[in-house]
Amino acid sequence: MALNFEEWVCPLPLRDHTTIVMGHGGGGQMSGELVEHLFMPAFANPVLGGLTDSAVFQLGGARLAFSTDSFVVQPLFFPGGSIGDLAVNGTVNDLAMSGAQAAYLSCGFILEEGVELSVVGRIATDLGAAAQRAGVTIATGDTKVVDAGHGDGVYINTAGVGLVPAGVDIRPQRAAPGDVVIVSGQIGVHGIAIMSVRDGISFGTEVVSDCAPLNGLVAAMLDVCTDLHVLRDPTRGGVATSLNEIAKSAGVGVELIESTLPVPETVANACSFLGLDPLYVANEGKLLAIVAPDDAEEVLAAMQAHPLGADAAIIGSCVEAHPGMVVTKTAFGATRVVDTPIGEQLPRIC
Amino acid sequence: MALNFEEWVCPLPLRDHTTIVMGHGGGGQMSGELVEHLFMPAFANPVLGGLTDSAVFQLGGARLAFSTDSFVVQPLFFPGGSIGDLAVNGTVNDLAMSGAQAAYLSCGFILEEGVELSVVGRIATDLGAAAQRAGVTIATGDTKVVDAGHGDGVYINTAGVGLVPAGVDIRPQRAAPGDVVIVSGQIGVHGIAIMSVRDGISFGTEVVSDCAPLNGLVAAMLDVCTDLHVLRDPTRGGVATSLNEIAKSAGVGVELIESTLPVPETVANACSFLGLDPLYVANEGKLLAIVAPDDAEEVLAAMQAHPLGADAAIIGSCVEAHPGMVVTKTAFGATRVVDTPIGEQLPRIC
Repeated sequence: MALNFEEWVCPLPLRDHTTIVMGHGGGGQMSGELVEHLFMPAFANPVLGGLTDSAVFQLGGARLAFSTDSFVVQPLFFPGGSIGDLAVNGTVNDLAMSGAQAAYLSCGFILEEGVELSVVGRIATDLGAAAQRAGVTIATGDTKVVDAGHGDGVYINTAGVGLVPAGVDIRPQRAAPGDVVIVSGQIGVHGIAIMSVRDGISFGTEVVSDCAPLNGLVAAMLDVCTDLHVLRDPTRGGVATSLNEIAKSAGVGVELIESTLPVPETVANACSFLGLDPLYVANEGKLLAIVAPDDAEEVLAAMQAHPLGADAAIIGSCVEAHPGMVVTKTAFGATRVVDTPIGEQLPRIC
Repeated sequence: MALNFEEWVCPLPLRDHTTIVMGHGGGGQMSGELVEHLFMPAFANPVLGGLTDSAVFQLGGARLAFSTDSFVVQPLFFPGGSIGDLAVNGTVNDLAMSGAQAAYLSCGFILEEGVELSVVGRIATDLGAAAQRAGVTIATGDTKVVDAGHGDGVYINTAGVGLVPAGVDIRPQRAAPGDVVIVSGQIGVHGIAIMSVRDGISFGTEVVSDCAPLNGLVAAMLDVCTDLHVLRDPTRGGVATSLNEIAKSAGVGVELIESTLPVPETVANACSFLGLDPLYVANEGKLLAIVAPDDAEEVLAAMQAHPLGADAAIIGSCVEAHPGMVVTKTAFGATRVVDTPIGEQLPRIC
C-alpha cells in the first residue's frame, strides 16, 4: 500500500531536526516544542490546553483529576526502588499536584521478548506494594509483548483517576507576585541515584532515590490551607524546569535564594563530578508549593511535621519583575538566570 | 548494587518458560497464565478481580468505567488505519463493552530516537481525528523517548474513563444458558489486513481493517435493551478466545453454528493461504453480544440499523452442556471444540 505522508505537513522543524532525538523526551524546551507544535494542534481541546500534570474535569457529578505517565527508566532496579515504584508514585504524584487523592490506577506493560519472568515478577510485586503504600487500587491492566531488540526489558504506563476536593483550585496560572516558593526537601536525589548505577558511568555514592508517594503530604498541607496556589513535582528537568513552566504559565518572575536550596552534599559532589547543576536534576519524591505569603508559615509547618516534608524549606518567591523568568540570587548578591534546559541532561531517569 | 532477585520467587514456570516469549502477549492461554499467576498475586484486589475489558467502580457519586491498552502494532500504518486510530478505538471499545460512553482519554507516547517527526505527526493527527469521530476528549498526555534500537518507531498507551448508565450491568459472568450470541459483522478482517502488509509475508488482498469506535453502536443497542448480558470486542485471539473467556467466567457452554459465521471471502482465502482459522483472527470494529432470548430480535434489529452493525447476525447460543467450553456445529451435524489458543498466532496486530 502506498502511504502518502505528504498529506501531513510537519509544522516544524524543531531546531532543524526532522527526526526524534533523545532531547524530545527530556522535559525541556524541545519536549515543550514537540507538545506545542505537534501534539497540541492534533489533539486541540480546552481540557488538554491546561498542560498541567493532570487534567481536571467534571464527570457524572464528580470532580475528577486524570493523568498518565510512561516509564522507561534504565536500569530497571536502582538504589531506593524500581520501575514498579516509579510507575505508581509518578502518577499518584501527578494527581496530587492537582490536590487530588489518587483512587484507581491503570497499568499497561510492554514486555520485551526474552526478559526474565523473575524480573517481571519482581517489578509487578514492587508495583503492587507501592500501590498499597499509596492507598491506590490497580483497577485495570494490559500486557503487550514486543520482539527482542524492540524494547528494553520492561516499559510501564500508568494512568490514574482521583477526586479533587471541593474548593481546591491548584494550577500553575495561580502563582502571583509576592507568593512564597517552598520545596518539600532535598533536591537532585533521584537523578543522581539513577546515574550512580548507569552502565558505563557508574560511580560510588550513597545516594538513594527519593521515590515516594506525595498524596499524604499534600493531604496534610490541604488540612491547614485549602488555598494552595500551585503544586508541582519537579521530575524530568528538575526544579529549574518546573519553576520556568510555572513562571511562563502565570506570567510572573521567580527569584530563588541560592543559599536556601537544600542540596545534599552527596548530590553536590556527584553533580560537580558529572558537570551537572542540581537545579536540573530529577526528583521523584519532592514537591514545589507556591502559596500566598500569609499562608506560608502554616503550610511550611504542616510539611515539616510530615515524614516526607521534614526538610521542607522556603527557597524564594514570585516577583513582578522579569515575568516568565527564573533567577537565583547568590550569597554575594549576584543574580543568575535559571533557564529551561533545551534537551536532555540525564536520559531515561523515569 | 547487588540486586537480590531471590526475594521474589516465580510461581511459574509457565509451560517451562523462564523468560517472556511472544505468546505471553497473544491474548491466549499463556497471556491468561501470566495475568493469573504473576500479575494478579502482585496486584490482588477485588476491582481487578473482574478481569473484564474495563473496571467499573463508584467515585464521587459517579459510576465510572476505566480501561487501558498499549498499542505496539507493526506496521504503524495499514490498510484502513494506523496505530493512532487503534489507540483511540481500542480504549473507546473496551469502555463500551461495559456499556460506558468514553468521555476522556489519556495518551502516552513512547518514541524511538530516530523516528521521523512526520511519522509521529501523522499518527498524532490520526489519533486526534479518531478521538473527534468517537466523541472523546484527549485530556492528558505524556511523551518519552527511548534510544534507537529499544523501540519500534512509536508505541502508544491510552487509558479512558467513561460513565456507565444507571441500571446497566454488562459483564461476562451474566451469560446464561439459553442466551443468544450475536456478532456485529464480518469477522477476521483486522488481523488479515495487518498481515497483508507485514514485511516478509506480504500478499495481495483487498482486505481493509475494520478499526472503528463501537460506542455509538452500543448506545443504539442500549436504547432498545438496557439488559444486555455480555458485550465483548473480539480483538487479540479473535471470536474464539473471547467466547472461551466468557464461557469460563459464566460457567456456561457456547454452541456456534458454523454456517452462520460471517466470514468474508477475502478473509477465508487469506486464512487458507496462511493456515489460520478466522475464529482466531483479531477484529477491531466488531462486538459480540450475549442477550436473553426474548431480547435477541430487537437487539439484532437495532444493530442492523446502525452502520457498524449492518451485517450483524446470530451465530449461536449459550448452553448448559459442556460448561466453560465453546463448540461449533458444522453443516453436517458434526461438533468441533473451539479451544483457547495457547500462544500467539499473529504477533503485534494491535
